[in-house]
Amino acid sequence: MKKLTVILAVILWAPVAAQPKDFRAQVAAWVTANQQSIVSELVELLAIPNVASDTINIRRNAERLRDMLARRGFTPELLETAGNPLVYAEMKVPGAKRTLLLYSHYDGQPVDARAWKQKDPFTPLLRTGRVDQGGIEIADITRAGRFQADWRIYGRSASDDKSPIVAICAALDALKAAGHSPASNIRVILDGEEEASSPNLVPAIDKYRDKLRADLMVIFDGPIHSSGRPTVAYGARGIVTLDLTVFGPRAGVHSGNYGNWVPNPAQRLAALLTSMKGDDGRVLVRGFYDGLTALDADERTILDAVPDDSARMLQTFGISSPESGFLKLQDAVQFPTLNVRGLSSARVGAGARTIIPDRATAAMDIRLVKETAPADLLAKVRAHVSAQGYYLVSGDPDDETRAKYPKIARITVSDTATAAFRTSPLDPQAQTISLSLERAFGSPPVRIRTLGGTVPIAPFIEALGLPAVLVPIVNFDNNQHEENENLRLGHLFQGIEIIAAVLMS
Amino acid sequence: MKKLTVILAVILWAPVAAQPKDFRAQVAAWVTANQQSIVSELVELLAIPNVASDTINIRRNAERLRDMLARRGFTPELLETAGNPLVYAEMKVPGAKRTLLLYSHYDGQPVDARAWKQKDPFTPLLRTGRVDQGGIEIADITRAGRFQADWRIYGRSASDDKSPIVAICAALDALKAAGHSPASNIRVILDGEEEASSPNLVPAIDKYRDKLRADLMVIFDGPIHSSGRPTVAYGARGIVTLDLTVFGPRAGVHSGNYGNWVPNPAQRLAALLTSMKGDDGRVLVRGFYDGLTALDADERTILDAVPDDSARMLQTFGISSPESGFLKLQDAVQFPTLNVRGLSSARVGAGARTIIPDRATAAMDIRLVKETAPADLLAKVRAHVSAQGYYLVSGDPDDETRAKYPKIARITVSDTATAAFRTSPLDPQAQTISLSLERAFGSPPVRIRTLGGTVPIAPFIEALGLPAVLVPIVNFDNNQHEENENLRLGHLFQGIEIIAAVLMS
Repeated sequence: MKKLTVILAVILWAPVAAQPKDFRAQVAAWVTANQQSIVSELVELLAIPNVASDTINIRRNAERLRDMLARRGFTPELLETAGNPLVYAEMKVPGAKRTLLLYSHYDGQPVDARAWKQKDPFTPLLRTGRVDQGGIEIADITRAGRFQADWRIYGRSASDDKSPIVAICAALDALKAAGHSPASNIRVILDGEEEASSPNLVPAIDKYRDKLRADLMVIFDGPIHSSGRPTVAYGARGIVTLDLTVFGPRAGVHSGNYGNWVPNPAQRLAALLTSMKGDDGRVLVRGFYDGLTALDADERTILDAVPDDSARMLQTFGISSPESGFLKLQDAVQFPTLNVRGLSSARVGAGARTIIPDRATAAMDIRLVKETAPADLLAKVRAHVSAQGYYLVSGDPDDETRAKYPKIARITVSDTATAAFRTSPLDPQAQTISLSLERAFGSPPVRIRTLGGTVPIAPFIEALGLPAVLVPIVNFDNNQHEENENLRLGHLFQGIEIIAAVLMS
Repeated sequence: MKKLTVILAVILWAPVAAQPKDFRAQVAAWVTANQQSIVSELVELLAIPNVASDTINIRRNAERLRDMLARRGFTPELLETAGNPLVYAEMKVPGAKRTLLLYSHYDGQPVDARAWKQKDPFTPLLRTGRVDQGGIEIADITRAGRFQADWRIYGRSASDDKSPIVAICAALDALKAAGHSPASNIRVILDGEEEASSPNLVPAIDKYRDKLRADLMVIFDGPIHSSGRPTVAYGARGIVTLDLTVFGPRAGVHSGNYGNWVPNPAQRLAALLTSMKGDDGRVLVRGFYDGLTALDADERTILDAVPDDSARMLQTFGISSPESGFLKLQDAVQFPTLNVRGLSSARVGAGARTIIPDRATAAMDIRLVKETAPADLLAKVRAHVSAQGYYLVSGDPDDETRAKYPKIARITVSDTATAAFRTSPLDPQAQTISLSLERAFGSPPVRIRTLGGTVPIAPFIEALGLPAVLVPIVNFDNNQHEENENLRLGHLFQGIEIIAAVLMS
């Protein structure tokens, strides 16, 4: 009953294009009948190496994508930048009242071929399941015939992020075959440098602003919720990384001769970290959570509806309980973090010596949310360290500094911070996507107010000033960025239905 | 006036053998006249490689030492053990009322010849000063003629610990030339496995107990106080090392996807370390200082008389102040320590990844004092960690353990602990040494109640049940255990006078 009320409220509040009845069943049937050609188109695309620095092959990818889009009735072109070209395509739909800007990327992470369980990450393989669970290779992908949902394609960018591009093409083919046009004008922008932090994406806005105008941006990237249900994400945390170093004696000092007398920087770093975060996982740095407001009832409903399987996650990670201050994952990711991602001081293990170390370093990352700007949180962390009695240096302390200050520390910030982004889940444009998915699939999608991780596209979204949502389609266990990247075909086929629902929104 | 009172009190309390007037001047004159032969005897001894595992050369060393001692009127022999032989020698002095057991060791640390600034650490060189301060090599050590105090001999074991053996021989030669006999019966025991932790020394007691009986043990090892003044040390701290590991998720977890939700073991290790030690350097583990009593007035006087140059030490180490709980070094070393000698968790620097690490480890050492037994302090540290809510495992936690306990840690203790030892500085036998040095040198020696570092001989001292003192002679900056080990000749020549004073006590 409560769910119905929410659905009705959404319908009343956000007008959605009238959807042809049963279009999803039509798309599904078309996909079933055309599995071989869909998979073949993906396999051929995966066979073109796509590391961003490999500019010759990158251009081969771009040209093939241009041709693929042209075959679907788009007007495509390559937008040149200071780096790799952006593949751009436009499709005007008679009568459409708005424009969607679809984003995906065609470059992939660098590969270490020796780590893969196949000869070449750019010669895709089809397997009957996960290779680490005994999946067996199927000899000829292009003649496999009927594909089972659990089969997987192994190869670089199988899931990150070439499959969404193929799925966009297939969704358009399927809709056309059923006699449907998209409900919105469609613009497509395919990035060739995402895994290299998209250095030329924001600068391209100045040059190609008119082509990038739209009412809503839809990003096809990342994995679907682990429940496997259609997923819409409205934001993602940002990140800034830093190293915090506490200085001790100029060089390691004999722990016997001077133990209890020369202060220990590892001990002091421990105290400093402890002053920054409580046992419940809450950050104690003054003002760290400033600007965050309590969730309203609608947002609360959205968070509570996410079908996270806490018990399974705890089991997977081998922990008995989460941070006591953040018992639910969806609540945890609404807040910025202060995370120790590494510790180092002198040596541990066989090389350990009985010394008071010369320094101790914590490598940290701060995950940002929309309300917390990187510069602001960094300033607060600095102020906190100073308030603990530390004199902050930028390089190594010189003799005079060492003689003057009892406690000396350094905070080194990485060059680039990526800001968070978030479109309100209640934004009318954004709501059209979830509503269309709900109507197509018969139940609401998993709606993620904030992804815990960071999406490099955030600065582009911010610079365009558009509402934006992420609609992931690939399987959660895809080994993204690692060796043996893979795509579960059931996810690809469902992903075509998901993208069709986006196109029909 | 106060000093005079102390001296008189000591004289009244501790009867000392009547010393021939001016024997020190006689020894000094003899040394000046015989520099070449003293240095040559040392250089020839250093030319025999002496790493404990090199059993053939070790025996060559032992045989040469036996012959050197025989030439001084000792009755020497090699005491066989399960490992390298002990060189033993005895000299009975008519009329002597007590027996001194002199200890030194003839093995040296392993060498990495490439790190040395000379071809072969076992081909000793003579230089005009420290090699890192421009000391120039003097071509022929055996024909250098008149040696200057600042010249140095470079070679393995030049200071640690062959020079005291040569100095014992020279002191006996000098006394004999002046017509004096030692005031005590002398027994000498030279260890061939000290740098390998002397595994066969304590077991040798059962076999050779009668040969090892004495009234006082005098250990010639380690560097003299940095002031350069004759030094007597009455004890040394022991050591036990441990690794403290806090467990997090089974494997590193994405810090974005799960940050704030999966507990961070590096953060928890920091809190655990902070719970163990205050900002003033005082250990907070319950009962850690149990058994320690306040120093009495005599001990206080001894500590306060040590001419530590705090300002120079602070400058050397590049720190502005010592631990606030232990402002004086000699006070600091009367207490056990809990020292973080290394930290490790995931990676820092170029290899750092944005994860919640799977574990974090602190490598620690505990320096023990006479009153604190290793097993007792370890039990207290374990109890402390448990009291912070940790379940202690011995290996890696299994699935069941992970599911059951929110906080899991492991304490791994190194196989061997070395206990502390301390003879009371007021022990009558021990006092004879400092008083003899005071009479010979005209001012009291530096008296160290407890050396901060650890002396591997401690278990032997404890097992023999003798009072024992250390009388170091070599320069403080001798690069002991490292490359470019060296001996300043001024220290060697003064060392002969120091040892003569010990023999005349």
